[in-house]
Amino acid sequence: MIKELTVDLGERSYPIYIGEGLLENIASYFEKHGISKGSPLLIVTDGQVGPHYLEGVLERLGTAGYQAASYTVTAGEKSKSLAVLEDVIGAALEAGLDRKSAVVALGGGVVGDLAGFVAASYMRGVRFIQIPTTILAHDSSVGGKVAVNHPLAKNIIGAFHQPEMVLYDTSTLQSLPDREVRGGLSEMIKHGLIWDADFAYWCEDNAERLVGLDPEALQYGLYKGCSVKAAVVSQDERENDLRAILNLGHTIGHALEAVAGYGELTHGEAIAIGMVGAARLSVKLGHPEEIHTITKRIFEKFGLPVRIPAHLDTDAIMRAMMHDKKFGEGRMVYIVPVAIGKVEINKQMDPKLVREIVDELKQED
Amino acid sequence: MIKELTVDLGERSYPIYIGEGLLENIASYFEKHGISKGSPLLIVTDGQVGPHYLEGVLERLGTAGYQAASYTVTAGEKSKSLAVLEDVIGAALEAGLDRKSAVVALGGGVVGDLAGFVAASYMRGVRFIQIPTTILAHDSSVGGKVAVNHPLAKNIIGAFHQPEMVLYDTSTLQSLPDREVRGGLSEMIKHGLIWDADFAYWCEDNAERLVGLDPEALQYGLYKGCSVKAAVVSQDERENDLRAILNLGHTIGHALEAVAGYGELTHGEAIAIGMVGAARLSVKLGHPEEIHTITKRIFEKFGLPVRIPAHLDTDAIMRAMMHDKKFGEGRMVYIVPVAIGKVEINKQMDPKLVREIVDELKQED
Repeated sequence: MIKELTVDLGERSYPIYIGEGLLENIASYFEKHGISKGSPLLIVTDGQVGPHYLEGVLERLGTAGYQAASYTVTAGEKSKSLAVLEDVIGAALEAGLDRKSAVVALGGGVVGDLAGFVAASYMRGVRFIQIPTTILAHDSSVGGKVAVNHPLAKNIIGAFHQPEMVLYDTSTLQSLPDREVRGGLSEMIKHGLIWDADFAYWCEDNAERLVGLDPEALQYGLYKGCSVKAAVVSQDERENDLRAILNLGHTIGHALEAVAGYGELTHGEAIAIGMVGAARLSVKLGHPEEIHTITKRIFEKFGLPVRIPAHLDTDAIMRAMMHDKKFGEGRMVYIVPVAIGKVEINKQMDPKLVREIVDELKQED
Repeated sequence: MIKELTVDLGERSYPIYIGEGLLENIASYFEKHGISKGSPLLIVTDGQVGPHYLEGVLERLGTAGYQAASYTVTAGEKSKSLAVLEDVIGAALEAGLDRKSAVVALGGGVVGDLAGFVAASYMRGVRFIQIPTTILAHDSSVGGKVAVNHPLAKNIIGAFHQPEMVLYDTSTLQSLPDREVRGGLSEMIKHGLIWDADFAYWCEDNAERLVGLDPEALQYGLYKGCSVKAAVVSQDERENDLRAILNLGHTIGHALEAVAGYGELTHGEAIAIGMVGAARLSVKLGHPEEIHTITKRIFEKFGLPVRIPAHLDTDAIMRAMMHDKKFGEGRMVYIVPVAIGKVEINKQMDPKLVREIVDELKQED
């Protein structure tokens, strides 16, 4: 059974299909959505995902009469650069992509962000299709934010470019390393914590099935996670206000990623710590104690970290935070839980309070 | 007297101000349009324009309470690259630009295209202000097309990103070299030829005043040229159909630019030849002979070329044309005049006919 949901954005609305083995019918989805057979496609993937799925995708599309070229980038964040963008656009030109062509992202968040910005900027914008192959990508594949990095800042060069559709084949998740699975589930839990208490508790109750990649639990969890993201994005496509709530845990999280050495903390691990920190901040501001105890309990059930490694320097973490682009005109914007399943956007957060939280998070027991 | 016109694009509408000396009041235009004083600005200019106007602009903005940083690129097409884009975005980061900041293009088409794509992609889009300093830029500063080049193709990486306003100070045109003046006027004449016969004849009658940079003639010509461009763009912002008429003369023109050595033909010169070619094609298709004689007469009055230099190879020109991105799914789209001031989009043009025209244009007497 394939689950389907719609990201409601007026004329830019698009469907997300989630299910076991749906890539076997990839061509029928392309046909259903009017992807042109008269113009070449470009599949962008990376060195980890490509070897597993690229050949099958090319073969199925070819059999159905699509001309699909492919370009494989090195796996990892380093491929989100303008230099790699130029290479991928070179491949698009050589394959003869025109204005009716589509660019397809086959991979995780890095490939989605890179290929999405290719689609947004090639000939000033062509169609874009997402085929996420990680759990984490359930987050980045909804909402149309695409970007590459600058040597001085992450995700600073990009666009809002909505895909035509998202094809989520849960069978591609079975080969994910355990640490990536848990990291991806961290964003899924976030979607419960900001919007849907029932879903947050469902995650807690189904931690073992999710970590064990049970197909049914995965399909439901991704469906609910994508639904929350879609609901938020539908109300605020270009991040003017509401969309900021998706940054729960990300202020501290991004700073930890910047300060910790490469590979010490995954994105999902860093934001798990950040969400526990936000819950602590919430209690400090007078909200119920249980926001902190329950948040922490959920992440612990998933084997995700809840404390800042003691050797990371508080000053360095604070400095990294002040460079984060979520601070408009010098003020500190912070997403604070007010209950499980509900958050508020605090635009006047005192950096001193945040510093206290960072220190406390090092001693979190 | 400042002339003002509006590019009507719904919520993305914006004004174009044209007049002698209006940069003296630059800060008041920024204030009128709500450009934030709480967020830094970045002025992008080049090594030719910067020395004349940058200091004055920075000083006037500074006096009014704006924090403006600047970045100067090397003059010329080579600055429209992803490498230079990365440099400019680095300067934006170092200057602390945030989501409420604006990027300002002070210069001709290259600076406008580059700075516009910086504005379109920095933090996924910030405000953009155009201060064109060439006649040619009256064309590129209206319509929101911004882009950089790929080593394999011009303008292939870009976006549609409309400015907040265009500030056209005709006094900045007084120092333009004569050849650039004539080249820029070529696009102005084009706006008459595609849309407004009276304006085409006005250009012919005022050739001497325009070439001589008479302020009043310039202001009127730029106003009318921008008006035509604005009318076309208002009806077809994303180049789905009508906007293609702006490409009159550009099919042959782009091919000539690609095949001729650097500096042999300016863009304006190449499209002048292309427009005479399109007029010849028109006559061949059965339209009145005078379309060709009048078109040719107008360009000759401006001292613009009307024939293809004989040493350029016809095969090479045809090959360059077939790579042009105006050919959707392999067919040849051609903009053909049907009268002075009126063109049609022919989507079934026979490349053999175009080849005949190219050969004839070498013997144009």
